[in-house]
Amino acid sequence: MAIKGVLFDLDDTLYDSSTFADRARKEAIKMMIDAGLNASERDAYNILQRIIKQKGSNYGRHFDDLVKAIEGQYNPKIITMGIITYHNVKFALLRPYPDTIKTLIELKKMGLKLGVITDGITIKQWEKLIRLGIVDFFDDVVTSEEYGLGKPNIEFYEYALRKINLRAEETVYVGDRVDNDIMPASSIGMHTIRILRGKYRDVKGENCKYEVKNLREIIDIVRSLKEGKE
Amino acid sequence: MAIKGVLFDLDDTLYDSSTFADRARKEAIKMMIDAGLNASERDAYNILQRIIKQKGSNYGRHFDDLVKAIEGQYNPKIITMGIITYHNVKFALLRPYPDTIKTLIELKKMGLKLGVITDGITIKQWEKLIRLGIVDFFDDVVTSEEYGLGKPNIEFYEYALRKINLRAEETVYVGDRVDNDIMPASSIGMHTIRILRGKYRDVKGENCKYEVKNLREIIDIVRSLKEGKE
Repeated sequence: MAIKGVLFDLDDTLYDSSTFADRARKEAIKMMIDAGLNASERDAYNILQRIIKQKGSNYGRHFDDLVKAIEGQYNPKIITMGIITYHNVKFALLRPYPDTIKTLIELKKMGLKLGVITDGITIKQWEKLIRLGIVDFFDDVVTSEEYGLGKPNIEFYEYALRKINLRAEETVYVGDRVDNDIMPASSIGMHTIRILRGKYRDVKGENCKYEVKNLREIIDIVRSLKEGKE
Repeated sequence: MAIKGVLFDLDDTLYDSSTFADRARKEAIKMMIDAGLNASERDAYNILQRIIKQKGSNYGRHFDDLVKAIEGQYNPKIITMGIITYHNVKFALLRPYPDTIKTLIELKKMGLKLGVITDGITIKQWEKLIRLGIVDFFDDVVTSEEYGLGKPNIEFYEYALRKINLRAEETVYVGDRVDNDIMPASSIGMHTIRILRGKYRDVKGENCKYEVKNLREIIDIVRSLKEGKE
């Protein structure tokens, strides 16, 4: 069956999310200490990492919990200083991977539909696409918030296919995580390509037919699939 | 009784909120139309004004409602374009009134406690104080969100006095609105000064002993009250 569309994960697949988030968090901690947070940078960072691990990266109150853990009480000045700094630094660093736009252009030239399937808050994920300057490449974007259920639920992937009007077998899905991206998408019959970028880069993955180190490598894979060579 | 503290309203009292918000909304509408919103600038602006009037300025989903009213459905791309533009423009324009910092310095030189009593979301109001560069002048800040009840409830004003540890009669309160600021603060025995700025500038106010056109005028009033001359 000919390939008609390519769907992408967003964070760590189309841009570097982990590294920049981490740098932004470190800057935020420095400013929070300047504003009165009573902890060393290292201790505050370790506590924050633990909170992110426990609550997930899309939890909205990391800095509230950090301040509560250290100060024993709510301190809106220190929390707000953290939030402002985190966002300022993250937006300052936000950019697509060097090969993201070139790859999207090539795929559009092939006449393919493109889409994004992403876990997260709808407005936040759209904001990233707009600020990254890549929003106009995508025919549709689906978020876990809009569907009410996120990765790795296969219902979420099936919803995305219905919304963008593609069948699984005519679709290539590109993501960085084995558990959340590759396994569910493969299980419903999508062609999958794993990109080895971001913090899950070194996680071992079985059953992964295609693994690439750069986005531009997917162009040849998609072309082969499209022409029915594989 | 000697004056020991001055409490301020924030929006339209310490900085120009109404004018800048309005300019930011107009820019947001232009960008939303560029992104596909199917309306004239004037129609979209009028609908947005109606939504703000109905839901209040602290309602978090003005642009969601605007897009729903015009497009008949949720469109996260257009909504997000509006939100990003609104915030970018508002932050770009955000600054204290020209006499705000001078006035706060004079009041601190008099040895007074300073505080803020403001309706709104805690983190958003602190963000404004931090971005305005005036946060360090205030011994305390209370928001309607943290208390659970906003202006003009006198309980909110009494809570603020307890938190900052001042008695009503030793406190001067400065705000722009007769209904939300001057009346409740006067009714519990605070000295009140109305500042004639922002969109409520021309609203008639009875029982207002002190009305000023500029913040720096409050310095002499506070000094007189402090020295027991009035």
